Amino acid sequence: MKQVGVCLAGCGFLDGAEIREAVLTLLSIDRLGAAARCFAPDMEQMHVVDHLRGEPAEGQSRNVLVESARIARGDIQSLDELNLDELDALIFPGGFGVAKNLCDFAIHGADCRVNPQVEAIVKEAKARNLPMGFLCIAPALAAAIFKGQPCAELTIGSDPGTADALQAMGATHVDTSPQQAHVDSANKIVSTAAYMCDAPLSQIADGIHELVVQTLALTE
Amino acid sequence: MKQVGVCLAGCGFLDGAEIREAVLTLLSIDRLGAAARCFAPDMEQMHVVDHLRGEPAEGQSRNVLVESARIARGDIQSLDELNLDELDALIFPGGFGVAKNLCDFAIHGADCRVNPQVEAIVKEAKARNLPMGFLCIAPALAAAIFKGQPCAELTIGSDPGTADALQAMGATHVDTSPQQAHVDSANKIVSTAAYMCDAPLSQIADGIHELVVQTLALTE
Repeated sequence: MKQVGVCLAGCGFLDGAEIREAVLTLLSIDRLGAAARCFAPDMEQMHVVDHLRGEPAEGQSRNVLVESARIARGDIQSLDELNLDELDALIFPGGFGVAKNLCDFAIHGADCRVNPQVEAIVKEAKARNLPMGFLCIAPALAAAIFKGQPCAELTIGSDPGTADALQAMGATHVDTSPQQAHVDSANKIVSTAAYMCDAPLSQIADGIHELVVQTLALTE
Repeated sequence: MKQVGVCLAGCGFLDGAEIREAVLTLLSIDRLGAAARCFAPDMEQMHVVDHLRGEPAEGQSRNVLVESARIARGDIQSLDELNLDELDALIFPGGFGVAKNLCDFAIHGADCRVNPQVEAIVKEAKARNLPMGFLCIAPALAAAIFKGQPCAELTIGSDPGTADALQAMGATHVDTSPQQAHVDSANKIVSTAAYMCDAPLSQIADGIHELVVQTLALTE
């Protein structure tokens, strides 16, 4: 059974992993006969956002791994324990947590810096030719990590500002609709727009399923 | 377009709504051409559980509505604003939050008490002959609300202790597998075991989809 690492960035689209994208990633992995293994960095979130008001909740702090465990139902490990020998592919669901906790793209855009642990894992996975999937805003993380390296094709849908930022980091942006996933076969990188598009949940689910199908296909 | 109220109990299976069940409920509602409208009570959670360690997190408090907003992506209303005139059906995903925040079944079992606001809404929905769906442990909430009334058929899968507690409250428990939903046509109540069973996510998703199909069918 193929083992797919799923890297989470918290629990909630404004300060952590996009919950629906994470769940639908896990669902598609299971439907396609592979096994999901959840990971998250053991670190404090950049901040906590009140998702009812859409504003930062002052005076609160939450840990990315502990909150990600809500989506993983406790079946999750720290990124410290991630061993690429045991994985066939790696997928990053989206959510602002990717752009706030795994890197600081939400603050600094194309000038962002990446969490060193995440950067090391993704670079090593690439060196091993491991297929990787990036959802929603997570392609910005990929672009930041591979800045200055041979250009990867990525999609975040069709948002011009974000697409420009990806191109500024050296990636090639490809416009897609929510039900599509873009495959960069040369780099074994698959991406899908997910909630970068204001689309119905069933379309988001279709795009995520296509991403998982294509990521698993690249493990062959 | 049919309007389906989805009542959430927080965000995380140990102290709130079961995240995956909630997301898959929203997905099936969308796939079947209906619209989901999320609601949650504006109240403090019974407690906060660290989902990594599976133990209560001391000194923390979280609000059920604010945490539920993480699953609803902010598109949620307080139960105070729920108007049954605007809804065609009502669904309760599971998670311990149902048995800790919406009622106290997790503490008192068959002797549990129900949040008065939730009780009033469910009783009024029943009086209006509105179809309702209950996932996972949520059938215990239904059994508690309809205690002493004409017996409803419910399923929580096949866990004997919980099934006995439902029967002690006057419900008739029907054993099911995770991919099934049980329909009590007379009472217009549909239930599915979901994460009351230790089943793969894809089977849980199938059971939830069947529950939404059957709940919508009862709106005809």
